[in-house]
Amino acid sequence: MRILLTGGAGFIGSHFSDRLLAEGHQVVVYDNLLTGSLDNIAHLLDRRDFTFIEHDVSESIPVEGQFKAVLHFASPASPNPNSPFGYPQLPIQTLKVGAMGTFNTLRIARAHEARFLLTSTSEVYGDPLEHPQREDYWGNVDPVGLRSVYDEAKRFAEAITMAHHRKHDLDTRIARIFNTYGPRMRLDDGRVVPNFLCQALTNQPLTIYGDGSQTRSFCFIDDMVEGLYRLLMAEGDVHLPVNIGNPVEVSIAALAEIVGQVSGQAIQTQTLPDQRGPSDPQRRRPDISRAKAWLDWEPKVTLETGLRLTMDDFKARL
Amino acid sequence: MRILLTGGAGFIGSHFSDRLLAEGHQVVVYDNLLTGSLDNIAHLLDRRDFTFIEHDVSESIPVEGQFKAVLHFASPASPNPNSPFGYPQLPIQTLKVGAMGTFNTLRIARAHEARFLLTSTSEVYGDPLEHPQREDYWGNVDPVGLRSVYDEAKRFAEAITMAHHRKHDLDTRIARIFNTYGPRMRLDDGRVVPNFLCQALTNQPLTIYGDGSQTRSFCFIDDMVEGLYRLLMAEGDVHLPVNIGNPVEVSIAALAEIVGQVSGQAIQTQTLPDQRGPSDPQRRRPDISRAKAWLDWEPKVTLETGLRLTMDDFKARL
Repeated sequence: MRILLTGGAGFIGSHFSDRLLAEGHQVVVYDNLLTGSLDNIAHLLDRRDFTFIEHDVSESIPVEGQFKAVLHFASPASPNPNSPFGYPQLPIQTLKVGAMGTFNTLRIARAHEARFLLTSTSEVYGDPLEHPQREDYWGNVDPVGLRSVYDEAKRFAEAITMAHHRKHDLDTRIARIFNTYGPRMRLDDGRVVPNFLCQALTNQPLTIYGDGSQTRSFCFIDDMVEGLYRLLMAEGDVHLPVNIGNPVEVSIAALAEIVGQVSGQAIQTQTLPDQRGPSDPQRRRPDISRAKAWLDWEPKVTLETGLRLTMDDFKARL
Repeated sequence: MRILLTGGAGFIGSHFSDRLLAEGHQVVVYDNLLTGSLDNIAHLLDRRDFTFIEHDVSESIPVEGQFKAVLHFASPASPNPNSPFGYPQLPIQTLKVGAMGTFNTLRIARAHEARFLLTSTSEVYGDPLEHPQREDYWGNVDPVGLRSVYDEAKRFAEAITMAHHRKHDLDTRIARIFNTYGPRMRLDDGRVVPNFLCQALTNQPLTIYGDGSQTRSFCFIDDMVEGLYRLLMAEGDVHLPVNIGNPVEVSIAALAEIVGQVSGQAIQTQTLPDQRGPSDPQRRRPDISRAKAWLDWEPKVTLETGLRLTMDDFKARL
């Protein structure tokens, strides 16, 4: 089928483009390249079943032809305040693509009677008071905190998506994406996996903030793409949000060790003071019962395997 | 000074127009009359210092001349799903005026280097787990629940207002308005005060849902206007949200009794099953320490006095 995909030049969006094309769909990508990159889709630009349109979907979106599905992936996504591509550096753009971008794509889905998929985020849970996070947990987000430009934008995007489902009977789906890593991540993304890999590949000590006991759950991109594709193709009542992520929880200190093993070198670490803001999550881990039940999905790729594949990609790009 | 006010034909907006004019300001009201009414501002339409423009501020806003302050009051505000003017019946419009309406008014404030005031709501606290609610409580809102069209729109509006303050150094203020009542409320608003008053005035039994033990805090409109005006005029660092509401908590059963006393008649009550949705708040009461400290404000009007004044107005309109 013919599919409109916003943010298709981004990390997850470009991998999802690959998958859609591999499944025989036609893909039209809209991306303003604010945080995405043409490098991610360079291998697709000559294909006849792939179209790239450089455009900010927070503005009105001009379309040609009919779409069977509209997928809204576009958004800055790195929480790192020191990265030029982190949403703290792009507050207004992040808020706009969550609100106007979602409105604009929903409008197209409605006009075309197309299926709609929103990629939301585990950040809607904020600094969670329940652990692991189930989809019916309402979250703990500071509406006026520094991270609210992303968290509230995505909560708003979910609200408007559900409103279109309820009011207009639009066939909508919402994926709550947890931490994901893999080839094509920005080297300067600012999150811990790219940071560690870049440091390991350039023989620098890995930087650990605080005591390294804070945990994360890392999902390899192939697993993420599989979960998202199943959610897109699922039939039936799959309109409420679905967590897609890896439930295996690992401390930052343990991650550093695994990066060391994967790199095959002796790795040093350097400890810096905890830079967490007051609303940065200490722990986050998905409960994926819903994805298992609705999509028969769970992650397959181990952290060691995923990191090895990612390191190969980083090595080639450094 | 010359002031742009959205939602100025609404209940609170029209009273605030009166106050601004009484203080010598010029007021330009934008209102699409979706839930507001010309009746509320009929007495102002001939004044030279007052302009009314029928316009949906979720669209782009054409302005003439310069403004010193931009106040964004516009939004459906009744949670009643049975009222045609409740936001559950107007989900998309409610989401749009919270997102695009706030963006559009912020854009004008920025272009005019004007002060900006957002009227947010106690609904950002959702079904609160802390009681009473302080401004630094992050709330308990279901992002995909039926009420999220209002709650998340206002949380988003707060996030984008703070982002404009931080990113563009805009002089912004955020009022979190708690339950307010008074003359000019819609007779068919659907909330408990207008319901009780209409029932009392037409000799019907007052309808109590559930056992009547659920509590609310009711602020009379004159107190609300005073608090909002002080927040607008305050100098200094008053950018974080400020609760404006009455901390006196009263049960619905007790409210029925007071309505009976004020009406001077024997009042009957009728008990219906609790119709609360899963995210309707059981209790809500503002902590107004911040308003006291920053604005030297607290409510003055007793519930008896306020209900008497409101009943006089309702009697004249019924």
